[in-house]
Amino acid sequence: MSTEPTPAMIGIDVGGTKSLAVAIDMDGAVLADRTDTTRATASALVDLLVEQIEGLREALGSEVAVRGVGVGIAGLVGLDGRLRRAPNLVDADEFPVQARLEPRVGVPVFVDNDANCAARAEMMVGAGVGVRDALVVTLGTGIGGAVVVDGEVRRGAAGMAGEPGHMMVDPNGPDCVCGLRGCWERYASGAGLAHLGRLAAADGRLATVLAAVGDDLERLRGEHITRAARSGDADAMAVLDIFAWWVAVGVANSAALLDPELVIVGGGLVREWDLYGDSVSRALGDLLLAADHRPPISVVPARAGVGAGALGAALLARAEVGGGSADRRGPGGAA
Amino acid sequence: MSTEPTPAMIGIDVGGTKSLAVAIDMDGAVLADRTDTTRATASALVDLLVEQIEGLREALGSEVAVRGVGVGIAGLVGLDGRLRRAPNLVDADEFPVQARLEPRVGVPVFVDNDANCAARAEMMVGAGVGVRDALVVTLGTGIGGAVVVDGEVRRGAAGMAGEPGHMMVDPNGPDCVCGLRGCWERYASGAGLAHLGRLAAADGRLATVLAAVGDDLERLRGEHITRAARSGDADAMAVLDIFAWWVAVGVANSAALLDPELVIVGGGLVREWDLYGDSVSRALGDLLLAADHRPPISVVPARAGVGAGALGAALLARAEVGGGSADRRGPGGAA
Repeated sequence: MSTEPTPAMIGIDVGGTKSLAVAIDMDGAVLADRTDTTRATASALVDLLVEQIEGLREALGSEVAVRGVGVGIAGLVGLDGRLRRAPNLVDADEFPVQARLEPRVGVPVFVDNDANCAARAEMMVGAGVGVRDALVVTLGTGIGGAVVVDGEVRRGAAGMAGEPGHMMVDPNGPDCVCGLRGCWERYASGAGLAHLGRLAAADGRLATVLAAVGDDLERLRGEHITRAARSGDADAMAVLDIFAWWVAVGVANSAALLDPELVIVGGGLVREWDLYGDSVSRALGDLLLAADHRPPISVVPARAGVGAGALGAALLARAEVGGGSADRRGPGGAA
Repeated sequence: MSTEPTPAMIGIDVGGTKSLAVAIDMDGAVLADRTDTTRATASALVDLLVEQIEGLREALGSEVAVRGVGVGIAGLVGLDGRLRRAPNLVDADEFPVQARLEPRVGVPVFVDNDANCAARAEMMVGAGVGVRDALVVTLGTGIGGAVVVDGEVRRGAAGMAGEPGHMMVDPNGPDCVCGLRGCWERYASGAGLAHLGRLAAADGRLATVLAAVGDDLERLRGEHITRAARSGDADAMAVLDIFAWWVAVGVANSAALLDPELVIVGGGLVREWDLYGDSVSRALGDLLLAADHRPPISVVPARAGVGAGALGAALLARAEVGGGSADRRGPGGAA
């Protein structure tokens, strides 16, 4: 009689340029991983996902059986595993990722927003360990997010919860890529930092930064400002203070609804946290409702690392299929 | 051997002018109620609550045993039953209502925000029956709210969740009574409607309404505008359209985070829902993230009536003490 294979889950984080896939055992330990270049269209992406899953299965060998797959993708993902709107992929709006992938890999597939997946990893092994109510925001080119209530990432009625970046914070603000106007993302993301830099430049400041982009405001990006701030440029530091205020605005708005114990900031801009993190906390003290009558809300950088999205996607599959350690152990968890 | 008394819960909704108390049995049926004038200071209020509870106990007789008391009060209420900030009461900030009341009535006391209590009633017997994820907003002088996730009113880490009225929606907006600026409440409440009316009047419109308040902008209230709109005043109707847009802004902002299945609008202004409800739904279609890629979110008026706050406070006590019908029946529920 042969031994039952060890159950495993695969999680894949589809980024704008790279797609990271990991296999984990039921305790969350990583068994194997691989990184591939993301493909630009939705159907080519499904081919890639199949390759990554089959590649990991081969690497794991016959002693490990993959029981489920989780996929995290930037954009709005329905509870049915359909990409409702995906900014980084061509022809991806309304593309049924789950329905296309599942028959090709022979195990249950679950699809969620990339920030929701990263949040699962943060709560399990990152900054959110031991926390029940948290808000996760990822500050990158845009803003992603996740709402954690009572220990669970909440997807909402249609799977579209956790999009704080598209709260309107200024009725006279700039148009947003989403089609709305004055979204938080226009101020507190990488694109938002560039926007705030352009406002400062139009006001006669940021001369050094402007020179670095050949006086071409269109070329100004967030990195130019953070780089200048690191070298001590006072104008750039002032723009980062305004940026921090805007970060705090969205955190305070979210806190008015959710009152989280902790706010975890991830995304590319968290690498610059030392430049503006303290300013965010200070501004939040001014922007939080009844700040004098409540405990402060900690805002901390994410800690689960670049693999958070893939690990979190695998955790999603583990939670949905059943199994895993402690309170999540279910029928699928026994080897 | 005597029969065990029938268990009951008391709920009290402390309003700005009246305090409504109800006693319910474990199935939620109202056994008795009474209404008294609210007292203005926190300690006088505790005396009133004791009177109301003792009065109801007397009315119920010895065959009914009150097992718990819930109290709903406008303002921010900590999870420890302390009023962190109460706009309608003198000397009430940081007043420990639960700790003061509990020893005087001899049963467990639970205190929560009035809108959270009303939301519990809406979910049980009102517009939210059968719904798992909802947002409740109460449009009165200010804006109250409640966040319902997976069937439960969520209080957050410190008890301060569900305050959408204090999301900042305009960095250049008017100062708010809360000490912040540009809060949603400044636009989408009764006070907000008056503010929008003043802006229209300053712009040369609303002549009829202005005449009704003797050209004194300070006297202009929301009721003046709704009354004029009812009599067909086009300027007043235009102001209500702007008001509806602002209502939709806060609903859309909340939906970006929570993606509720349903939004329930309560509070005094819901009586005028026929004047602006359709406009709210229309505006929400323009303001919701990716409206073309998601199911619409229904916005409906509250249905649990003026007793919702008191009933919901009693339901809070029932949930906390244990007992009640269906999934809530616990050790305290058996007679």
